[in-house]
Amino acid sequence: MDRKKVLITGAAGRIGSVIHHAFRDRYRLRLMYHNTVPPVEGDEEVMVGSIADLAFLEEAVQGVDAIVHMAGNPSGKATWEAVLEANIQGTYCVYEAARRQGVKRIVFASTNHVTGYYEKEKIYTTPDMPERPDSYYGASKALGEDLARYYVDAFGLEIFCLRIGSFQPDESVKNRKSDRILSTWLSHRDCVQLVRRCLEVEGLNYGIFYGISGNQRAYWDISNARQLLGYEPEDDAERFA
Amino acid sequence: MDRKKVLITGAAGRIGSVIHHAFRDRYRLRLMYHNTVPPVEGDEEVMVGSIADLAFLEEAVQGVDAIVHMAGNPSGKATWEAVLEANIQGTYCVYEAARRQGVKRIVFASTNHVTGYYEKEKIYTTPDMPERPDSYYGASKALGEDLARYYVDAFGLEIFCLRIGSFQPDESVKNRKSDRILSTWLSHRDCVQLVRRCLEVEGLNYGIFYGISGNQRAYWDISNARQLLGYEPEDDAERFA
Repeated sequence: MDRKKVLITGAAGRIGSVIHHAFRDRYRLRLMYHNTVPPVEGDEEVMVGSIADLAFLEEAVQGVDAIVHMAGNPSGKATWEAVLEANIQGTYCVYEAARRQGVKRIVFASTNHVTGYYEKEKIYTTPDMPERPDSYYGASKALGEDLARYYVDAFGLEIFCLRIGSFQPDESVKNRKSDRILSTWLSHRDCVQLVRRCLEVEGLNYGIFYGISGNQRAYWDISNARQLLGYEPEDDAERFA
Repeated sequence: MDRKKVLITGAAGRIGSVIHHAFRDRYRLRLMYHNTVPPVEGDEEVMVGSIADLAFLEEAVQGVDAIVHMAGNPSGKATWEAVLEANIQGTYCVYEAARRQGVKRIVFASTNHVTGYYEKEKIYTTPDMPERPDSYYGASKALGEDLARYYVDAFGLEIFCLRIGSFQPDESVKNRKSDRILSTWLSHRDCVQLVRRCLEVEGLNYGIFYGISGNQRAYWDISNARQLLGYEPEDDAERFA
């Protein structure tokens, strides 16, 4: 059976680069970078350009079976102007390019900051609660989720929004700045599993899922990821306690 | 007691012009127009400029007690580019200008199209259900609501989002194109009451309310407007049945 062809946007990012290496054997990959291009291997395709450029995006998505959309400004402290360009306009360009080119399935890197004010108030949070962003960054990803729903309802796309928790480049060291990570951690292999399940699940066309490992101290509900995606996290941040 | 000073953005619009005339005696008004300026009266102040120009907005909000934010592209068929400028950037500018100038209270003209896909599927809708926009227009107003929540939580603003139904310039004639209006109608005086209650309610800093009259056939829940705002609609679209 032919391997699916998957475009990864933001392939140089913290998460994008992990996904890139983990998906090498499973999918044929097209990697989209903003400027710098790290080493690529084998038959991997590479494109360089701006996520906010619709004409470029139309080229980038042409002929792929699915998109893992990781590009964007990842800072919780980003300015409005920064997220307006990279996250709001950028995510519109991904969805719209996919619609025009007939690509149905997209995994969208949203963020727990879409509901960050519940966390500040120590409120256990489920994915169906009203959005309560804690930043321009969080608000920009809320728009990405709402726009996803529109593209699913109106144009038949299949979009899965992952409200990613704490993803660390180096997994061997506990983030000692705070205990928050005991609740919010997402291990590399759980992240890879979650994205893969979103790419391969059948009979589902939309969903919002918190992207965390099976942390005992979690205050975000991942039961819908277990039930709808078959997500079975292998890790628990308790190891850092 | 001094009358409050209220800025109305989009004062030339269908709703803005009705609010303008109804509020003349109750508040001191500053009217913001995009280009054309209709006749004004008495001590009304006028400003002309773009809703997406933050520096201009900072001038426009200076010294007012509250803002009725009606400006924006009101078309359910507007392009992404149109709503990105007028509704997304425009609403950010209003909130940010208010924050910088110390204006706390804002009434934001959202729309029923934020949840339009429930209506298409004949699902009775309450304000706390996840957003399901039916258009770029609806998605842009969803962002306005989510960004409002952020400004309330993070900066202490008080913002009330009205998901306005069907507001017609001419109230004497039934819109004969469809029976939808029997469910979605908002009369002029009920609109004026609703905006006024948002401007004057105490002990509340955020809310999403459907803006319709007391229509027997309503499929949007306005019980929270009755309970939290004291909204008592005087009209019912059944008169057109």
